[in-house]
Amino acid sequence: MNALWLEDEKLSLRDVPMPRNADEALVRVRLSGICGTDLELAHGYYPYTGVIGHELVGEVVESPDPEWVGRRVVGEINMNCGACETCDAGRPTHCPSRTVLGIKQRDGAHTEYVSIPLANLHRVPDSVSDEAAVFTEPVAAAAEILEQVSMGSGDRVLLVGAGRLGQLIAQVLATTDADLRVVARHTRQRELLASRGIHAITETDVEPRSWDIVVEATGSPSGFDLALSAVRPRGTFVLKSTYAGDLTLNLSPVVVDEITIIGSRCGPFDRALELLERGEVDPKILIGERCPLSHALEAMETAARPGALKVLLDPTM
Amino acid sequence: MNALWLEDEKLSLRDVPMPRNADEALVRVRLSGICGTDLELAHGYYPYTGVIGHELVGEVVESPDPEWVGRRVVGEINMNCGACETCDAGRPTHCPSRTVLGIKQRDGAHTEYVSIPLANLHRVPDSVSDEAAVFTEPVAAAAEILEQVSMGSGDRVLLVGAGRLGQLIAQVLATTDADLRVVARHTRQRELLASRGIHAITETDVEPRSWDIVVEATGSPSGFDLALSAVRPRGTFVLKSTYAGDLTLNLSPVVVDEITIIGSRCGPFDRALELLERGEVDPKILIGERCPLSHALEAMETAARPGALKVLLDPTM
Repeated sequence: MNALWLEDEKLSLRDVPMPRNADEALVRVRLSGICGTDLELAHGYYPYTGVIGHELVGEVVESPDPEWVGRRVVGEINMNCGACETCDAGRPTHCPSRTVLGIKQRDGAHTEYVSIPLANLHRVPDSVSDEAAVFTEPVAAAAEILEQVSMGSGDRVLLVGAGRLGQLIAQVLATTDADLRVVARHTRQRELLASRGIHAITETDVEPRSWDIVVEATGSPSGFDLALSAVRPRGTFVLKSTYAGDLTLNLSPVVVDEITIIGSRCGPFDRALELLERGEVDPKILIGERCPLSHALEAMETAARPGALKVLLDPTM
Repeated sequence: MNALWLEDEKLSLRDVPMPRNADEALVRVRLSGICGTDLELAHGYYPYTGVIGHELVGEVVESPDPEWVGRRVVGEINMNCGACETCDAGRPTHCPSRTVLGIKQRDGAHTEYVSIPLANLHRVPDSVSDEAAVFTEPVAAAAEILEQVSMGSGDRVLLVGAGRLGQLIAQVLATTDADLRVVARHTRQRELLASRGIHAITETDVEPRSWDIVVEATGSPSGFDLALSAVRPRGTFVLKSTYAGDLTLNLSPVVVDEITIIGSRCGPFDRALELLERGEVDPKILIGERCPLSHALEAMETAARPGALKVLLDPTM
């Protein structure tokens, strides 16, 4: 089968064997989404060899439990051991011996078939289209913020960054009663936010040290600095981006202003699917292009352009 | 009166007028303590001109409310406006127009008399000696950690740093049921901890990514790195030191491991006085020298030596 393969920081389209694992479900990929992490992996952010891609919607074609066969599914990306102290403590997504779909020691989703443990599968409600369901993983990552930080009426919340992940975070945070503003640099980003009734502002509108909760989703040092400077004393700063390389920063304000910084990664698929089913989050407006899998290399280039929207790969095209 | 004066990053002993503010208490200083912040101020960490010193115990000699006269007191160091949004929101120690005793726009305690608002005064219980009471401010700063992070039985807590503040933090954290270990470099530091039944370890004993709560109290980049690397996934990292200058660090572990970083500064005086009254914290073992105020310049040098214990200034000697 055809697959987007990463090796020695080089991408290629290659013919790879179908996955065979009788203990897991074999999922035929209907759509996969190119994520910022895919681009970072291709730039050596983390050493990985294999099929990349971890956002997908597919259909189970083989399963040790026949109940799953024929079902439309999405899959959680962290495959935990289920036996260690971290798993026992209820933090399976942090299992130290986990594999991660398309990221760490497990072939991913930019291909035709992918093997996923049954425990990681979630059935997609009929009312959620493939084009929406393929966003379940990043919507869950956005929803993780609400698992970590309570926000509601009276809270002034600032989101810095309105790229692909930023737009999803904006939509998720907009489901709360908090007073949300989003720093968006590009006209198209502001239009997308406006179409969901979300209030965009510019960097110069950010009053320093005055926001209760600030979410950083740019992944850039300048975004980090702007976001940190915006947090009020005893406020909360959510780090939603990974940063390639080191940041140089002055941490004294964190101590003097007693700021809480919270790192935030993968999130709850069930909550994400609920948000999609109820239409509270509409990721379809974020689709830039839908490409055949055979054009995956060009698709990765498209996704890497500044301001690019979500690029989907369709192995059936 | 005699005072330790800072101007243009130069310290001097000089004769300054007695403070006169009929709205506040006039406190005759019995003892003041030299703090790391005093040393940092003298090195230009923050521009300040005036009498330095913010740890003191004294006796009220004049007061708009005569009830206070003759009382032995300690004083909270943040003088807030009481009228702004931050004060209204219950965060008086973060009032943006606050003055800070011996640190920001308000003459401090390394002198004979100091003016302190009545609202900032706390009466010292009779059973608490001057030598213990002079530590109220740093004990309160240590106790702030317990206001911010709940810890108890089953929690593995690591404190990195066993200097003056580290020792107080160790004693405060040891009042909980948490399983506490303290990274201490020097023999004397380990002896002080052992005398309180606190378990010291070396840097090489720190298993990475395995501690539920890590407190950083070294103020050094290497201490920061060690402490951050010790936090388990979804663990908590308390920053108790201010860092002069910038740190260069890789924040990806904070995101990937969903670590919470909490900046921690000034704390509750009432809780600190309770800990001192009950003898749960014994700061007297941390006194290195007691010097007359007239030797304040030499005392600052003594306090700056690596591994130095607390140096107290006594204006009555």
